[in-house]
Amino acid sequence: MKLNIALLPGDGIGPEVVDQAVKVCDAIAKKFNHEINWTKALTGASAIDACGEPYPDETHEVCMAADAVLFGAIGDPKYDNDPKAKVRPEQGLLKMRQKLGLFANVRPTFTFPSLIDNSPLKRERIEGTDLIILRELTGGIYFGERGRKDDGNTAFDTCTYTREEIQRLAKLGFELAMTRGKKLCCVDKANVLESSRLWRETVQAMEKDYPEVTVSYEFVDAVAMRLVQWPNSYDVMITENLFGDILTDEASVISGSMGLMPSASKGVHTSLYEPIHGSYPQAAGKDIANPLATVLSAAMMFEDAFGLKDEAEAIREVVNKSLAAGIVTEDLAGTNKAYKTSEVGNWLAENI
Amino acid sequence: MKLNIALLPGDGIGPEVVDQAVKVCDAIAKKFNHEINWTKALTGASAIDACGEPYPDETHEVCMAADAVLFGAIGDPKYDNDPKAKVRPEQGLLKMRQKLGLFANVRPTFTFPSLIDNSPLKRERIEGTDLIILRELTGGIYFGERGRKDDGNTAFDTCTYTREEIQRLAKLGFELAMTRGKKLCCVDKANVLESSRLWRETVQAMEKDYPEVTVSYEFVDAVAMRLVQWPNSYDVMITENLFGDILTDEASVISGSMGLMPSASKGVHTSLYEPIHGSYPQAAGKDIANPLATVLSAAMMFEDAFGLKDEAEAIREVVNKSLAAGIVTEDLAGTNKAYKTSEVGNWLAENI
Ligand SMILES: CC(C)[C@H](C(=O)O)[C@@H](O)C(=O)O
Ligand SMILES: CC(C)[C@H](C(=O)O)[C@@H](O)C(=O)O
Repeated sequence: MKLNIALLPGDGIGPEVVDQAVKVCDAIAKKFNHEINWTKALTGASAIDACGEPYPDETHEVCMAADAVLFGAIGDPKYDNDPKAKVRPEQGLLKMRQKLGLFANVRPTFTFPSLIDNSPLKRERIEGTDLIILRELTGGIYFGERGRKDDGNTAFDTCTYTREEIQRLAKLGFELAMTRGKKLCCVDKANVLESSRLWRETVQAMEKDYPEVTVSYEFVDAVAMRLVQWPNSYDVMITENLFGDILTDEASVISGSMGLMPSASKGVHTSLYEPIHGSYPQAAGKDIANPLATVLSAAMMFEDAFGLKDEAEAIREVVNKSLAAGIVTEDLAGTNKAYKTSEVGNWLAENI
Repeated sequence: MKLNIALLPGDGIGPEVVDQAVKVCDAIAKKFNHEINWTKALTGASAIDACGEPYPDETHEVCMAADAVLFGAIGDPKYDNDPKAKVRPEQGLLKMRQKLGLFANVRPTFTFPSLIDNSPLKRERIEGTDLIILRELTGGIYFGERGRKDDGNTAFDTCTYTREEIQRLAKLGFELAMTRGKKLCCVDKANVLESSRLWRETVQAMEKDYPEVTVSYEFVDAVAMRLVQWPNSYDVMITENLFGDILTDEASVISGSMGLMPSASKGVHTSLYEPIHGSYPQAAGKDIANPLATVLSAAMMFEDAFGLKDEAEAIREVVNKSLAAGIVTEDLAGTNKAYKTSEVGNWLAENI
């Protein structure tokens, strides 16, 4: 198969971790007889530095022409600490999501038995956790009207949702639940928000099309609690953009394997795969960052974007093998030998 | 001193736990020579049942005439499961907050050494946690314009904040920080929301008036993570209504002592004290609910509303004594003898 992949390394540790994923993908292509055509493009702070724009048109064209996008991370402290910065790397993210129509962010949280004791939660609380949060990514208060009034003394933001936007995300949620535990939890704040009431009523109307799926409706505040108390009670969750932002991040720390968690963003025009961790500027260029989340994001890409399940499985297997063999970066090495980012990537590629 | 207290038992276990707090307050009054004048009034489902309105005008008058309000809990499943219910008990809460001008919800999270192992978090993560979240309670998306368009197919909610609303809350936060660890964290989503940018700029402008306070600005998604990872790194947090709703609930489960956590809501007209737990309808009328959160809310009331610090200390002491002596309800008893709600209340009152 011919695979056209846009490669967006981004900022900080992005380029380093993406490099390892490329090695692994190339090894997979060789083994399974595929041909990967990588096209690199700039995003984030590195794009601002190059052309003043965090998601340049050129990058957009590269993404539109590709079958899938592999993304590193963006963000740079030199823009965070400058209140006068007119363009911020994160704006590139939002623009990219909107222009590529990346409406569904898929965020799995699962545990690696060998890493479970890294969790801030007690073992018995986290064991068996395997949940996926589907976060709506192109609507809600992120993209609504906002501004100031009264000489700048009043600020407002608007959260808007249409029935179609909700249906599109909920459909993915129902379908995903059918392939898994058949439980779907719709997270909202329907006791206060009108947009949440539209979410709830839209999902309720879809229930009859998926009679095998057990649907629950929970308030976002209750979910924020239960995620810490009983994360393993969830299967698939669907929620709007801002709630999803908060809950996916909360969920990401409970497994103790944040450095390993992949994600996908499914879109109208293409889909994008990225590690959930940030650009960790402190670690950039040191060859110490953990590349596994990006490698596992590439596995998601093979499975979801190309329908290549065996290839995805082969990647997951070699990752598990590296964990078992202790071929890991310093964040996971404990008192054992820590390997460099590039060493882990080489080992994975050789052991495919 | 003469203390006029409005007593709002509410629904579910509300009346039972409030009864115990009354016993304790009366014992305190006797010991310290105060005269408490209690005035009971209806709220929530019990008020809807009685007069069709979850926060009746009569109740509002009682609250306005009082020096402080002691509140139980509201909520009843018979209204939750009825999609056609026009009035819901929770609407009473929002109306009460608005009409009493309860603009600041004060939610401490701390640990009881003897209960620390009930936490879903590992001991070393939670030990030493002592944080307070100040949640803005009468603004934001809870009270903004909302509605439907396009034949009901589009729904919107508006989040609005004024500089004054933010200043009022932030002032409390700075002052509170001054009496504690002198650290203030402003939680927002200033990388996306205009209202958050107004929060940030308003708090930044206030920093110079509190030179001893170290202020940090963190995004709500990052805080949702760090609350689980390092809760003991926080001192005082200030945030807007919806973020506060989510984060206070998340924080409430980390201590392992949710059944003991008190809260206060400071208002323009009066202030209100209530346990953070809900109305637990399943336990209602069984004399098994833990009354300690309500008793500790009464301690907050003595200290904050009446400036009676010794009285507050005396309540906290007797609560610690009851925990040490194992005079506790079934949720805390483990394999030891469980006491009834009323037995715990009697023991506390007798040991004041
Ligand atoms: C950087 C920021 C705008 C972004 C978001 O809030 O969506 C980030 O937190 C994320 O979750 O990808
Ligand atoms: C019942 C609901 C409206 C309320 C809120 O969201 O404020 C509750 O969750 C709370 O935190 O007191």
